[in-house]
Amino acid sequence: MSDRMKAVVKTTAGPGAELTTVDIPTPGAKDVLVKVKATSICGTDLHIYRWDPWAASRIKPPLIFGHELAGEVVEVGQEVTSIDVGDFVSAETHIVCGVCHQCRSGQRHVCQNVSIIGVDRPGCFAEYVVVPECNVWQNPPEMPPEVASVQEPFGNAVHTALSTELVAKSVLITGCGPIGLMAIAIAKAAGAEQVFATEVVPYRIQLAQAAGADLVLNPKDTNVSAEITARTAGTGVDVLLEMSGNPSAIREGFAVLRYGGYAALLGIPPQPMELDLANTLIFKGATVYGVTGRLIWKTWYQTKALLGSGAVDLQPIITHRFPLEDFEQGMALMDTGQCGKVVLFP
Amino acid sequence: MSDRMKAVVKTTAGPGAELTTVDIPTPGAKDVLVKVKATSICGTDLHIYRWDPWAASRIKPPLIFGHELAGEVVEVGQEVTSIDVGDFVSAETHIVCGVCHQCRSGQRHVCQNVSIIGVDRPGCFAEYVVVPECNVWQNPPEMPPEVASVQEPFGNAVHTALSTELVAKSVLITGCGPIGLMAIAIAKAAGAEQVFATEVVPYRIQLAQAAGADLVLNPKDTNVSAEITARTAGTGVDVLLEMSGNPSAIREGFAVLRYGGYAALLGIPPQPMELDLANTLIFKGATVYGVTGRLIWKTWYQTKALLGSGAVDLQPIITHRFPLEDFEQGMALMDTGQCGKVVLFP
Amino acid sequence: MSDRMKAVVKTTAGPGAELTTVDIPTPGAKDVLVKVKATSICGTDLHIYRWDPWAASRIKPPLIFGHELAGEVVEVGQEVTSIDVGDFVSAETHIVCGVCHQCRSGQRHVCQNVSIIGVDRPGCFAEYVVVPECNVWQNPPEMPPEVASVQEPFGNAVHTALSTELVAKSVLITGCGPIGLMAIAIAKAAGAEQVFATEVVPYRIQLAQAAGADLVLNPKDTNVSAEITARTAGTGVDVLLEMSGNPSAIREGFAVLRYGGYAALLGIPPQPMELDLANTLIFKGATVYGVTGRLIWKTWYQTKALLGSGAVDLQPIITHRFPLEDFEQGMALMDTGQCGKVVLFP
Amino acid sequence: MSDRMKAVVKTTAGPGAELTTVDIPTPGAKDVLVKVKATSICGTDLHIYRWDPWAASRIKPPLIFGHELAGEVVEVGQEVTSIDVGDFVSAETHIVCGVCHQCRSGQRHVCQNVSIIGVDRPGCFAEYVVVPECNVWQNPPEMPPEVASVQEPFGNAVHTALSTELVAKSVLITGCGPIGLMAIAIAKAAGAEQVFATEVVPYRIQLAQAAGADLVLNPKDTNVSAEITARTAGTGVDVLLEMSGNPSAIREGFAVLRYGGYAALLGIPPQPMELDLANTLIFKGATVYGVTGRLIWKTWYQTKALLGSGAVDLQPIITHRFPLEDFEQGMALMDTGQCGKVVLFP
Repeated sequence: MSDRMKAVVKTTAGPGAELTTVDIPTPGAKDVLVKVKATSICGTDLHIYRWDPWAASRIKPPLIFGHELAGEVVEVGQEVTSIDVGDFVSAETHIVCGVCHQCRSGQRHVCQNVSIIGVDRPGCFAEYVVVPECNVWQNPPEMPPEVASVQEPFGNAVHTALSTELVAKSVLITGCGPIGLMAIAIAKAAGAEQVFATEVVPYRIQLAQAAGADLVLNPKDTNVSAEITARTAGTGVDVLLEMSGNPSAIREGFAVLRYGGYAALLGIPPQPMELDLANTLIFKGATVYGVTGRLIWKTWYQTKALLGSGAVDLQPIITHRFPLEDFEQGMALMDTGQCGKVVLFP
Repeated sequence: MSDRMKAVVKTTAGPGAELTTVDIPTPGAKDVLVKVKATSICGTDLHIYRWDPWAASRIKPPLIFGHELAGEVVEVGQEVTSIDVGDFVSAETHIVCGVCHQCRSGQRHVCQNVSIIGVDRPGCFAEYVVVPECNVWQNPPEMPPEVASVQEPFGNAVHTALSTELVAKSVLITGCGPIGLMAIAIAKAAGAEQVFATEVVPYRIQLAQAAGADLVLNPKDTNVSAEITARTAGTGVDVLLEMSGNPSAIREGFAVLRYGGYAALLGIPPQPMELDLANTLIFKGATVYGVTGRLIWKTWYQTKALLGSGAVDLQPIITHRFPLEDFEQGMALMDTGQCGKVVLFP
Repeated sequence: MSDRMKAVVKTTAGPGAELTTVDIPTPGAKDVLVKVKATSICGTDLHIYRWDPWAASRIKPPLIFGHELAGEVVEVGQEVTSIDVGDFVSAETHIVCGVCHQCRSGQRHVCQNVSIIGVDRPGCFAEYVVVPECNVWQNPPEMPPEVASVQEPFGNAVHTALSTELVAKSVLITGCGPIGLMAIAIAKAAGAEQVFATEVVPYRIQLAQAAGADLVLNPKDTNVSAEITARTAGTGVDVLLEMSGNPSAIREGFAVLRYGGYAALLGIPPQPMELDLANTLIFKGATVYGVTGRLIWKTWYQTKALLGSGAVDLQPIITHRFPLEDFEQGMALMDTGQCGKVVLFP
Repeated sequence: MSDRMKAVVKTTAGPGAELTTVDIPTPGAKDVLVKVKATSICGTDLHIYRWDPWAASRIKPPLIFGHELAGEVVEVGQEVTSIDVGDFVSAETHIVCGVCHQCRSGQRHVCQNVSIIGVDRPGCFAEYVVVPECNVWQNPPEMPPEVASVQEPFGNAVHTALSTELVAKSVLITGCGPIGLMAIAIAKAAGAEQVFATEVVPYRIQLAQAAGADLVLNPKDTNVSAEITARTAGTGVDVLLEMSGNPSAIREGFAVLRYGGYAALLGIPPQPMELDLANTLIFKGATVYGVTGRLIWKTWYQTKALLGSGAVDLQPIITHRFPLEDFEQGMALMDTGQCGKVVLFP
């Protein structure tokens, strides 16, 4: 193979990115080199592309970004023992230190010293990417590359949704971006009694219905609280899965959470927000869990089981496919919300 | 209404029972009188009918037995506030004391002073039965009486199956009597990855397949352990739900339970049995939960949700219906195992 | 006995209260009449006394307030079965409906229809008070009345502190009012590795040290975050027990909560506050539990065990005793913070 | 240093062992070489020494046995990054594969492919021992070597005792060998309300009292069940920690376990035993957990916290110290039960 490759690079500290040609990276002794077959666009990639305040504070250009991936191993470092050339793999994108308190006591997903592929080190919007052996996940050979790539954000949805018991519960999912859509499908697969969702973009409302939501409400033209209260015998929902990061959605979600209910928060509010802790949380006796990444590897086993058994089908949620060269189209599309998951093919 | 009713009575301390006519009972101040529309036969009723050692030690004839029921409230005591004449109801059959340590700390299902309908006080193999107000469960009016009656044993299955997380897990159910069959349906509804079942009676093997088991094995002609080990990548099952009470099934179930796995035991071994605690439990780091009754009322809410959302359909598991007068046919049928759930109609 | 009694009554919708003489109340069929031996002042009583916005929205004068109590049963209603005249009792002050979703599924502490003694019905700043039988807690005869009275707020501390595992954990308690002080003692009794506390009032700082805190920090003159970070090897505390309701204390507490940590919130912020959900909760993978009341009766069993075994001694936290007539002195003292728990004797 | 060392070697497949001189082992690239300062005798070592059926089936002579240790790192392999020469360390003795289902999902303590120091590879009854870097635990420099060595079995006790909530609970510990004694101390430190223990050897009964048991019963001359029932208001104990492996103790322990109680089993019954599952487990609604090893590293953090805070003192439980040369005296002593923990000094 040639020693040069195509890559999408954030070259300067500002908006945009550049498709260019760079050296194929060399794996270290405990790394593997993956030829990327599919790579999907995360909201985080859009933040980096647009160069918002978070990106400006974290990203050090030049950087190949992108972190959701599926591909074939084409080279392994000399100390790699569990992966072979030819394996079809994806990656846990949080590279953890292994020695902090959290890593040593079953909470690697909140490692104090995490390094993220495509954020803190070169990513996979490229023909090749280096991944440490211990972050590689083996895919079933028959899994389509776009599904395999999308497992990483699906893992966020799995971690969020399965952080509590859903069977026989009423569930509200606020925000039907790709991860919210996945959460709808997971909640149905897990035996939730009723799955409510809120979303404002008509395109995504349709996707939410297709994903299996029992009722999708548009807060722009519906009194969400009244509607859900009526359908839960006045009690409110057992579980809130917050996927939007939108302050009004968060407040609305807590408003219909029942006394003694459970909320998992994955959406990231862009800045500090006002919250009535007394009434939304304390008097309610609620439990709230903040979700970061995926439980390593518990979440991946769950992901594998849900996809392998057919309980969840991600194909309807993957709505757009582009060659890597057209990444700007993908970014523009994500900006509009007129899409589910967008996948790039290098 | 007349003041006499038909009832199936255990008249003497020995095998058999008698269909006879007795006085309609009078509800106390905090009781309701239910006109029975359907009553289903439990394994416990068969023990009483046959007069096995357990029955001989517990039952004081004469006794109307039977405890699974659905019916219409026809009279309420003067202090009853939450139930009205005309309500369509079923009953939690364990009448608890409310004041023991367990009752006062969230474990009413293991009340130290429990009294059971049809075991310790008059049951529902009759046209009418008295139930304390605080044991009455309101049914949706549209639920068929035979389904409503079967909710009580379904609650045992729900309690057992949902005592641990099943989503994305591999599950083995040993024993496909009515409650085992229900557990299969629940495990599928709850998103289990693979549901294995064992059973020796061909009729019930077919019912298990119909209930959704991914693989039903007959230990008489299959090496259960080898088969399941192969289908779980050598690891064994995550969860064992023991429904048979059969010592070999119990040992076989533990043999394929994975290291760090979970077992819930509902089936009652008829006598003490030999168990290799070191290898089946301790070295394995397993967790075992003994199941009694239903969590009051958590299990009933789950039951309602699973049936109401359509996640579980009990109709295929209800295989036989008889008028109350033919209760002996029902008992004989249950003895053969050539049935799922058997319902009587007074 | 006479048919009149002394009582502290909120007579009008405004600040203050009046010591006056009223009729001794009559217990209903399922109630008991308690002769109050000791009644302690809660922060809630101070809100009612001062007539703050919460009080104005909730309290309907005239009302005898006060809810923490110990006393002797002097009369029982005709249907009371578990309590006798002469019993020495305290009361769970949340009277629950028993039929809502929460009541029927193990979460009575967040009953949708709760009625609180001294808030929604006549309280115990009086010589006598009526308590429903099912809210009565039997005390050991040898327990001093002031300790028995203080069990109710101690139950709040127990519920908060024991809502998570404390043994071998580092714990921060923000706010050393009476309940914060109790939480310190509980955390030590439960085997916490290090117990940190924050407080600004010197009198309470001394009480916190006496209660067993390993380190009490005054945020006015110490960098709490730096100090605690240093003493937890840079990791932060495992557990935050928030007892102040003060927005800066809440933010400070979350700032030193470790990644993957647990927070229980009991203190009530007086109004909505700004919170950086992304950094304090979501990225941190934290779990937050809102605490209301006491788990009925699990918390009371724990309370009894902690006091009965001598693991916790409440006497040092009870700093002031007044005759009921001097309730205004007690209120004034609580306003200053120069006290632990204040008890009144009718 | 010389290249030869003293070691206790099981030289042939039969009873006994030999103190001899062997080559000092050479650490691999990811190993460290530890100069042993203290090594304590485990019941497992006694099984190997005596050559019981378990030992005969598992041990391949010649083997240096012994696995509990504390020592100084004197050499590190070339790829070791987290340990330095001079570090004072102990070892997690279960070397796990890191890639099986259990290892990858938070249950390394039940790794399917575990290899144990002193059982499956050379142990530490010697002047030097090789330990993989990833099994090394850093000790505080000031910890006495015998305490540091004893942390491994203490970890078994911690894993067992802290596998459930003990605060405010009544606890029965059956068997007061060294790990049972440690469990007594842990239960008291964790705030248990009452700690009962059973033991037949008078020497150990005294140690159990010294460790803090509220009541130590000798089943040879006391009706354990009657005594404990009386002291728990007829309810039985909340928690059973089974440390003996003795069938009668196991049955007796379950007999006084309350309805809805919890049992953790660490003691290993030497062979299959008869158990009345219906009455001891199922009707009781009990939960049983089988304990293997230590949670890696959660248990070690708890161990560190309990010892570091002074909540548990292991010195009274360490009753005998011998030079390594006198290992046979230590083995003989353990055979009699007239000891707590026995430590050897190479």
